[in-house]
Amino acid sequence: MARTDRANDATRPLQFERAFTAQAAGSVLVTCGRTKILCTVSIQESVPQWMAGGGKAWLSAEYSMLPGATRQRKLRDGRAGRVDARSLEIQRMIGRALRSVIDLRLLPEVTLWVDCDVLEADGGTRTTAINGACLAIHDALKSLQASGRVRTWPMHSLVAATSVGIVRGELLVDLAFQEDAAADVDLNVVRLADGRLVEVQGTAEKRAFTDDELRSMLALAETACARISAQQALLLEPR
Amino acid sequence: MARTDRANDATRPLQFERAFTAQAAGSVLVTCGRTKILCTVSIQESVPQWMAGGGKAWLSAEYSMLPGATRQRKLRDGRAGRVDARSLEIQRMIGRALRSVIDLRLLPEVTLWVDCDVLEADGGTRTTAINGACLAIHDALKSLQASGRVRTWPMHSLVAATSVGIVRGELLVDLAFQEDAAADVDLNVVRLADGRLVEVQGTAEKRAFTDDELRSMLALAETACARISAQQALLLEPR
Amino acid sequence: MARTDRANDATRPLQFERAFTAQAAGSVLVTCGRTKILCTVSIQESVPQWMAGGGKAWLSAEYSMLPGATRQRKLRDGRAGRVDARSLEIQRMIGRALRSVIDLRLLPEVTLWVDCDVLEADGGTRTTAINGACLAIHDALKSLQASGRVRTWPMHSLVAATSVGIVRGELLVDLAFQEDAAADVDLNVVRLADGRLVEVQGTAEKRAFTDDELRSMLALAETACARISAQQALLLEPR
Amino acid sequence: MARTDRANDATRPLQFERAFTAQAAGSVLVTCGRTKILCTVSIQESVPQWMAGGGKAWLSAEYSMLPGATRQRKLRDGRAGRVDARSLEIQRMIGRALRSVIDLRLLPEVTLWVDCDVLEADGGTRTTAINGACLAIHDALKSLQASGRVRTWPMHSLVAATSVGIVRGELLVDLAFQEDAAADVDLNVVRLADGRLVEVQGTAEKRAFTDDELRSMLALAETACARISAQQALLLEPR
Amino acid sequence: MARTDRANDATRPLQFERAFTAQAAGSVLVTCGRTKILCTVSIQESVPQWMAGGGKAWLSAEYSMLPGATRQRKLRDGRAGRVDARSLEIQRMIGRALRSVIDLRLLPEVTLWVDCDVLEADGGTRTTAINGACLAIHDALKSLQASGRVRTWPMHSLVAATSVGIVRGELLVDLAFQEDAAADVDLNVVRLADGRLVEVQGTAEKRAFTDDELRSMLALAETACARISAQQALLLEPR
Amino acid sequence: MARTDRANDATRPLQFERAFTAQAAGSVLVTCGRTKILCTVSIQESVPQWMAGGGKAWLSAEYSMLPGATRQRKLRDGRAGRVDARSLEIQRMIGRALRSVIDLRLLPEVTLWVDCDVLEADGGTRTTAINGACLAIHDALKSLQASGRVRTWPMHSLVAATSVGIVRGELLVDLAFQEDAAADVDLNVVRLADGRLVEVQGTAEKRAFTDDELRSMLALAETACARISAQQALLLEPR
Repeated sequence: MARTDRANDATRPLQFERAFTAQAAGSVLVTCGRTKILCTVSIQESVPQWMAGGGKAWLSAEYSMLPGATRQRKLRDGRAGRVDARSLEIQRMIGRALRSVIDLRLLPEVTLWVDCDVLEADGGTRTTAINGACLAIHDALKSLQASGRVRTWPMHSLVAATSVGIVRGELLVDLAFQEDAAADVDLNVVRLADGRLVEVQGTAEKRAFTDDELRSMLALAETACARISAQQALLLEPR
Repeated sequence: MARTDRANDATRPLQFERAFTAQAAGSVLVTCGRTKILCTVSIQESVPQWMAGGGKAWLSAEYSMLPGATRQRKLRDGRAGRVDARSLEIQRMIGRALRSVIDLRLLPEVTLWVDCDVLEADGGTRTTAINGACLAIHDALKSLQASGRVRTWPMHSLVAATSVGIVRGELLVDLAFQEDAAADVDLNVVRLADGRLVEVQGTAEKRAFTDDELRSMLALAETACARISAQQALLLEPR
Repeated sequence: MARTDRANDATRPLQFERAFTAQAAGSVLVTCGRTKILCTVSIQESVPQWMAGGGKAWLSAEYSMLPGATRQRKLRDGRAGRVDARSLEIQRMIGRALRSVIDLRLLPEVTLWVDCDVLEADGGTRTTAINGACLAIHDALKSLQASGRVRTWPMHSLVAATSVGIVRGELLVDLAFQEDAAADVDLNVVRLADGRLVEVQGTAEKRAFTDDELRSMLALAETACARISAQQALLLEPR
Repeated sequence: MARTDRANDATRPLQFERAFTAQAAGSVLVTCGRTKILCTVSIQESVPQWMAGGGKAWLSAEYSMLPGATRQRKLRDGRAGRVDARSLEIQRMIGRALRSVIDLRLLPEVTLWVDCDVLEADGGTRTTAINGACLAIHDALKSLQASGRVRTWPMHSLVAATSVGIVRGELLVDLAFQEDAAADVDLNVVRLADGRLVEVQGTAEKRAFTDDELRSMLALAETACARISAQQALLLEPR
Repeated sequence: MARTDRANDATRPLQFERAFTAQAAGSVLVTCGRTKILCTVSIQESVPQWMAGGGKAWLSAEYSMLPGATRQRKLRDGRAGRVDARSLEIQRMIGRALRSVIDLRLLPEVTLWVDCDVLEADGGTRTTAINGACLAIHDALKSLQASGRVRTWPMHSLVAATSVGIVRGELLVDLAFQEDAAADVDLNVVRLADGRLVEVQGTAEKRAFTDDELRSMLALAETACARISAQQALLLEPR
Repeated sequence: MARTDRANDATRPLQFERAFTAQAAGSVLVTCGRTKILCTVSIQESVPQWMAGGGKAWLSAEYSMLPGATRQRKLRDGRAGRVDARSLEIQRMIGRALRSVIDLRLLPEVTLWVDCDVLEADGGTRTTAINGACLAIHDALKSLQASGRVRTWPMHSLVAATSVGIVRGELLVDLAFQEDAAADVDLNVVRLADGRLVEVQGTAEKRAFTDDELRSMLALAETACARISAQQALLLEPR
């Protein structure tokens, strides 16, 4: 059996600590198993030059891993002058996911900076970052709304993400690092709360895969994403 | 109708000019509509330090766009000290696609450098680069074989790629730049010659999409990739 | 009165959460008022080239502020290609403080990487980083000791740091950000648990100061550092 | 005899493929023996800040070699953070050569970007780049003229370049890479179509040279440049 | 005895050659023993963007060591893309020292650039740079005054700096390189001409130190700084 | 008349201050009019990796201008992450000039680093740097000889450089900055002491020039270089 600590279709325990820090407009410490990410949202009172005067907001995400996040220390991003292509790829994905649920035309000319910094990494950092950033951006938008700068609520859906992989012939959901390293096929899926797809990234890590396998993986991810969306929604309910 | 110059499921004319330059081990000028990419493969007599002594080869791809490739001149990659995240993301995809069809353990300790430089860009540069690089790496491996350094032929399949998008409600294959800019949903697919999947990258550019829509797009891409694989295979046939 | 929330000679509440992450050899989330810093220690199985073969360890510290740590978002360190001189200055100070309490000749040829990442900043980040890193390095050394790689305990003292400033004519200990911004004179002090000095950095921010004023500030810092050292020691006591 | 494939005073076959790409204002693929360079000219609707409002154009050239252009793969320019001093030196020379034949005051406030990217290198890349860029800039200016933005034709001459070297005691024109590597003395010459000099760069690679030798080399270059200018002129003739 | 060439409390011969170069507004070649630094002050007719329109000046210092300044050649600052943290730390200290004696509100909106380039280094470069820069900025301000751009003299004091160290149990003033390398404790002090403190930086290089030791070092530095201030003042006296 | 302060064929007063600094193997402060350059030579006990084991030395030159060297302050080379193409071009020229007079096979495996740092710039910095570096390298080689590491004297000639320009129709030797800015044609010449050419760099700054004009300029440069060589030789004579 490929997995001993939970069922193949089970996601790891997911926790959100909102307002983890006080100065950012939104701040969520999200934990998924041993993966721990601080997602903050900062509001900058300007947009990139090419958008200035357009009367709408911009959203930009950055992702980075702290040096001590992994057992082998990782070189500090940017210090050595090298670019971490994987970080850039991931932050582009986070930005797309969040932009897909927010109508930036309903916001003033601000830039919403979403920073996802991985404090500890044990697989699934890109999907966990999206799950945490979804709440952090919600809280930041609430603060804009509270200050009267947003009239129509601009976030039309929650967004959730998970990974699925084929490991030694079995389909596993929400891969931990060791599982990810052993996966033949790796799929990251981002879905709206209603199940529609926002992003699908499937890669043959060790062998090519069939359309049927892809379909099975997508179905597993659908269930997992629905569960995550429900957990997010519960937290946002008025009490 | 979304498209006037060809059928929605038609790919653009695809041409391969092999041995376009003489000194690189493989050199293919690939043209897809107005998109024009020079794919070269250089053989370096060493592998990255962490692989040294492992007795197998490494393959690394780099992708870049020449400044004059687009109507608006693009800043020369790297000169301004800025990193083009999109270029890095694309070159990682090219590398994965090629590594999926080559058994690097059957090669000596060399690095196969695959360089894809876009001379002119009109959409589909990442998929066209994969289609051209597939032939360039083939030719480079042939040269290694001819020099007696490869005993067992290490390339077990051809690999082909195309894009599919939903533009104004219609499914279009092999998007040109203007179509890509107007697409609601964008999907890049890489498949082996036997149809199995190597990479699936689907993104909600303007709206989320359903699993059904994804299935339809994948089916269209399958036909297109099969056609491209056949064209590649024809060129490689002994005459 | 310059300060309303606590006495002029009072430090802010200081908390240490050890083992905040699991993979680094030492990991302490230290909180001082609203300032929150993650200090991790990673053990790398090599030393810088110029020390190789010398039979002793090296210790290197890095300090960085996350973009969302302040109300105004800070540009991500290193991404823009700019160097943050303040970060480099602070990390040099952290490294000196820790090296002053550890006999690196009693350790094998490893590099101890001390990473201090500021999750939230409200003044006193350099002194708080030292206070947290002191415990993180202790825990990392304990893990080396547990694995039998350290025979003689190499850490001969705890080390503590605090700031003192002259704000509107009054001497304040452990300045919060707003107090620091208003300070005429600013002093950072690092002391061993026995009170001896490791580092003194006093700066005329708005006006020059006398030797008498320096003496008064040093005395205030002595009491505060003693209190911090005691709190650190209590945590390390066997239970 | 130093050279077997052509006469000592013969230049290699020179070919110009105009409009090689479609989107740049000028685009010439120039081939000289095995050296192959893509020269594009892009028109940017602004000038550098220090020239703004001056009512005239600016011309800036960039030169780079693709990684696969040589037998030994060349590190991608700019990716490694290193600057290729030779590239910068060459692009300055190309820029000077073109500015010497164009009256920038007769053009609107645009920047003419001349990009010379070497697809294959076999010696003479800087001179070949000038020969190709001369036609590319001509075509770009024609497009500006066609759009009514240029009243008085601003290009008052063609410009041509070649190299001469002393190899094993013989004077050779238009050195291929192997000849260049063996040369004792190396001279690059840029001349207007009427024979006047625009640039002379003579270097003692292995031994110093006399004023007489310089004179002989200049004379050889004059004939070669005249031949190239004639070939360029023929292409531009109205048909 | 720790020192043979001069008394423990003696500073090295200090010489100022004003107007060493002619084009900078202030230019002083300062020599302290074998340490030789060129301090120039340039006046730029603008301030950083965040200060624009504020009606006052800015002062910024840069410090760098020439490659040939030390016996072991030093890599040229900035060429290798690496940042020299020590240089940045020193230039921040020089800037603070000079800003502490100049009322920038009495100057027009210019930036005073203070460049301290070490031609030869034999210890004490940061303190010697401050001593030289003090005169260079004086001369630059005089030139501004002469041109009528300064009404009220904005430099309210001279500023002087020296180092003190504990070497093999003895207190030494103005450490040369070999002394500095052997020091247990190292203190840099910057004082106004009236003796008040501007900066105190004391570091335990090899062992911690007591408050009493700090007091003794500060007293020694006071005498030395007073001597340097007197020498500076003498040079500025009208003749 | 184009020039009032000296004859058209006169060079500016040229002074060499040898051993200007003490720690570099060779150190010459060369002054030509108001141009002032510090040329140092450092000996590094290794050669670049690609030459290791070849049993001969390498020589590498670096050129840089201090920020305060010109009336308008120049951005510090390398600090802003920008590359100064002009500096790189000049240092390549200096390196070639010196390598042309030294037989590196007669030296042990060391790298001779020639650093030319412009303290003040008033035209002619590249030629003045060569004139000064010629003496600095001589002195460094003498120190190698004195230590018994050089048996056969490896420097077979002195090397001298000057500039000639056509300014308002007149030929001027050794252009100062204002003359250089006004020049129609600009020629830099490097010659051995026996008059043979090492480098010729002629550029049409404002208009093309004839072979006759080039000949006249070369003749003027010959006389000037001979005078400089004589002055250098005089300094090196045993007394």
